Amino acid sequence: MRLTRIRVPELPADLEAGPELVLTGGEVRHLGVMRLGAGDPLLVFDGRGREARAEVTALDGLRATLRLVEELPGTPETPQPVTLAVALLKGDKLADVVRAATELGVARIQLLVTQHADVRDIGANKLARLNRVAAEASKQSRRAVTPEVLPPVPLAALTWEGQAYVAHPYVHDLLSSHLHWDSPVTLLTGPEGGFSESEMEALLSRGAQGVVLGPRILRAETAPLALLGAIAATGV
Amino acid sequence: MRLTRIRVPELPADLEAGPELVLTGGEVRHLGVMRLGAGDPLLVFDGRGREARAEVTALDGLRATLRLVEELPGTPETPQPVTLAVALLKGDKLADVVRAATELGVARIQLLVTQHADVRDIGANKLARLNRVAAEASKQSRRAVTPEVLPPVPLAALTWEGQAYVAHPYVHDLLSSHLHWDSPVTLLTGPEGGFSESEMEALLSRGAQGVVLGPRILRAETAPLALLGAIAATGV
Repeated sequence: MRLTRIRVPELPADLEAGPELVLTGGEVRHLGVMRLGAGDPLLVFDGRGREARAEVTALDGLRATLRLVEELPGTPETPQPVTLAVALLKGDKLADVVRAATELGVARIQLLVTQHADVRDIGANKLARLNRVAAEASKQSRRAVTPEVLPPVPLAALTWEGQAYVAHPYVHDLLSSHLHWDSPVTLLTGPEGGFSESEMEALLSRGAQGVVLGPRILRAETAPLALLGAIAATGV
Repeated sequence: MRLTRIRVPELPADLEAGPELVLTGGEVRHLGVMRLGAGDPLLVFDGRGREARAEVTALDGLRATLRLVEELPGTPETPQPVTLAVALLKGDKLADVVRAATELGVARIQLLVTQHADVRDIGANKLARLNRVAAEASKQSRRAVTPEVLPPVPLAALTWEGQAYVAHPYVHDLLSSHLHWDSPVTLLTGPEGGFSESEMEALLSRGAQGVVLGPRILRAETAPLALLGAIAATGV
């Protein structure tokens, strides 16, 4: 079983000296949703790279007490892997997306062939170059993980585990209201011109969640960074 | 007096036919914080470009009823102007920042001279070029407003009205918990190497709010887009 991992406002500076943590508000509701009770193990992280194993010692609807068991090695990685599934783009735009997405913590970049794409494939050399860009960006941002850039698949053939989000112009759902860290995350972004109507319908019917990204028109290379920025600003 | 402007989950398709709106949760608390009561006017927007004048008809701690008075012309602009105050960057990086920031809705870009900057000034030609980039990006994203790119000022000479936010590695405050739309917003981002410690202290002591942007190291040109993306993902 994968441990529930929740973000806490703060971890005590010295975990040995202050091994108890009291939570209120959203985190308590989240523990309830995850059906955790006294004695259950979980992971807590502070959004600034520190993480610890913990155990629920008491829980009611308003308040939870956790015993902090031990600090884990800090990591700049997201609590669950984030995949960016991005349509093929013209020219050097994909390199820019790969570079910034790597800084913003993606674990994997899956290229997509979509209906409106003006690029239908990518050569082996170019794919190798994108992987080099990811490796360099990973090193520069001091991540231990180098995201892999995977060769393009047709959108209909894309599969995902966990949550999938796609920016949608006609919904009012916020990414922050849906996102949770109990399962992997996939962000889908389209080509210049966007996903077609039938592609969008297919994604939603397959369980992707439409989310709002403001009322302006974003370039295909800006949308993924906006979604990833929104996630980074939650402190993961 | 500037009208309070709140985001609502949805506006009725036909404002003439369904002129009442019931709010619960966060919006109701926000109305309370703004000390609004029955009879007070306000603006509501749906985060997808629609906006309306409204009036509070009833308000208790849990629930508010608004009468929708009239629809206003839709706008892709943020409810309050957003200024990006960004350090001078090398090469063509500022053009990329200006382009994406314009798409993401900034009203103004203020260039900054900072301690760690490896660029100390910008020529008139280059500034004119950045303004052309902003004008083109504004047109492409169908905005009516063209952000002005203002010549650099020393960080200490920067003034702002309303809220200011700066990404800070040692705080756990979320941008989304602090941001509100009752006053203009300024986002501050540093050069490669970041703001110096004394610069950061000065900003915080002048009232800028430190916010978390995840545990990874972002390039100077990625950080502003991450902050702006986080705002766009709230639907403004």
